[in-house]
Amino acid sequence: MSEKIGEQSIKFSEPPYIIGAASICGPKEAEGPLARYFDILSEDPTFGKNSWEEGESEMVRQAVLLAIQKANKRKEDIRYIFAGDLLGQLIASTFGVKDMDIPVFGLYGACSTCGESLSLAAMTVAAGYADHVVAATSSHYGSAEKQFRFPLEYGNQRPLSTTWTVTGSGAFVISNQIPDNEGEVCITGITTGKIVDYGVKDSLNMGACMAPAAADVIYQNLTDFKIKPGYYDRIITGDLGKVGKRILLDLLDSNHVDISKEHMDCGIEIFYNKEQDTHSGGSGCGCSAITLAGYILKQMYQGDWKRVLFVPTGALLSTVSFNEGQNIPGIAHAVMLERR
Amino acid sequence: MSEKIGEQSIKFSEPPYIIGAASICGPKEAEGPLARYFDILSEDPTFGKNSWEEGESEMVRQAVLLAIQKANKRKEDIRYIFAGDLLGQLIASTFGVKDMDIPVFGLYGACSTCGESLSLAAMTVAAGYADHVVAATSSHYGSAEKQFRFPLEYGNQRPLSTTWTVTGSGAFVISNQIPDNEGEVCITGITTGKIVDYGVKDSLNMGACMAPAAADVIYQNLTDFKIKPGYYDRIITGDLGKVGKRILLDLLDSNHVDISKEHMDCGIEIFYNKEQDTHSGGSGCGCSAITLAGYILKQMYQGDWKRVLFVPTGALLSTVSFNEGQNIPGIAHAVMLERR
Repeated sequence: MSEKIGEQSIKFSEPPYIIGAASICGPKEAEGPLARYFDILSEDPTFGKNSWEEGESEMVRQAVLLAIQKANKRKEDIRYIFAGDLLGQLIASTFGVKDMDIPVFGLYGACSTCGESLSLAAMTVAAGYADHVVAATSSHYGSAEKQFRFPLEYGNQRPLSTTWTVTGSGAFVISNQIPDNEGEVCITGITTGKIVDYGVKDSLNMGACMAPAAADVIYQNLTDFKIKPGYYDRIITGDLGKVGKRILLDLLDSNHVDISKEHMDCGIEIFYNKEQDTHSGGSGCGCSAITLAGYILKQMYQGDWKRVLFVPTGALLSTVSFNEGQNIPGIAHAVMLERR
Repeated sequence: MSEKIGEQSIKFSEPPYIIGAASICGPKEAEGPLARYFDILSEDPTFGKNSWEEGESEMVRQAVLLAIQKANKRKEDIRYIFAGDLLGQLIASTFGVKDMDIPVFGLYGACSTCGESLSLAAMTVAAGYADHVVAATSSHYGSAEKQFRFPLEYGNQRPLSTTWTVTGSGAFVISNQIPDNEGEVCITGITTGKIVDYGVKDSLNMGACMAPAAADVIYQNLTDFKIKPGYYDRIITGDLGKVGKRILLDLLDSNHVDISKEHMDCGIEIFYNKEQDTHSGGSGCGCSAITLAGYILKQMYQGDWKRVLFVPTGALLSTVSFNEGQNIPGIAHAVMLERR
């Protein structure tokens, strides 16, 4: 029987495995430092479709199907899809998975959605509700800028605190079977985040909005499981960027927790930030998802890292709430990955 | 151990109970036929706040706190909130629950979200991941029209196939404890819906978009559990309205399933459709949520109904997907309620 641990965590008695993972990305990511780890690299930001939104759905579709294929499963073997994206009413996910004939749970946790989907997928498999499920998330620079900020054609200036939304989709098959492919990585536990609101209102400084939530859930994970940061080889946040990373380390330090040796941020890794002009780093659901599916799992399969705390981070805003003067609260969900 | 049943269902070996339920509604619902069943009726459509969106968040906040109170629990007893609404990036739920200091799973299933949140809440409790969790959903006429259609000030004509988005929020405490209040209603099983796309493109005829998904999940529930419609005292869809109801009954009839005796639709019940000029009926996440929290549970507590299949129905669109010419697919999730 899986256990409730501490205040916000679950420890799985029979940890579900990631038996398939796939990543797809756009042209800018394909020129970044992690490019060689991604499965599908597209030179076309609309992925052969008519709009960014349709292109984002196409990424989701391809990532999900490839993850299932890499898991040596068929579509019919998948009992549920847990999917979400950044767009209003989740249209990227909806149109990406609608023809797959698989029951769907739609999720929204802003850029923390990859953590939310992996958490619910693992909970579902560990409870015996399904043998194999898919967790999928996506983001797209064009559709996200249109959704949250300005039309790209307007060419607004980007302050140095901004991050660049990653065009990409990552999908994972979570299963109660031991994988027969390159490595055995399982989800041993999760810590589900609360919404944390520090009163930040700047939608061009998402790192500052999300860092307090990341600090909160990382601290809670260490507390619930009674472990130190050194338990993990890496503690990897989703898309805090350089500004958010600094805040995260400071906040944890003020609670006497030092994760500076273990910390890595997908947003900082995914672009050559200076050369690619991405300022504080990459962001979006796709940022943490493809970094996990491509780079992080590879390091674990190779044996370089045994334990990773994966912490996608989300900023909870819409244009409506932003224009009405609301704050931008953050949320982050922690997923404990372990190579067996 | 809970069981996977058939292709899309779960049967809970220890069914979680609904130990607290609360409903809050706006002025139009307060003049409808179900008004006496709702807990909080407001004459102010902004619920004392500055905007429809803030008002919707206020409804969520009040509904969640009241449900917890009616369950004789404290906020600290709740391990997770499963919440969603219709607005882009779930701002109604986010700002409604952000100060509660409870871990949050954000969900989106359009107007099927009440079924999605109850399903995941029941799965979580039945698996032993939590003792008590909250499922909450909301919708608001003003915020939804602004989000999906025209500014209210524009005064567009509403064809007879339109439904009227309910201003309301319903919240439920799902628990592994037998309730000590008015009655014992539990969730014995769920059937999770697939996205069903019949190619409908009319955002002013949501019933037609959603009815195929409702037919699909009801048929699957009956098939997975090997039961006939008469097993239930009522099969209750969320917000098909009059147009959608006709399509639902026809579609099931063509599969040789007749639910005409058991079927009820929350959208048809919630307004005096002729007198209140709501055309095909009510709709929105709040429609099924407050009808369940208020009217349906009351009938079950009183002993009038023993078994209910509760099937909230959702239309998956955004203004972006709609304006780009996409179809409006539907989804529906079925929750099996039983009085013990």
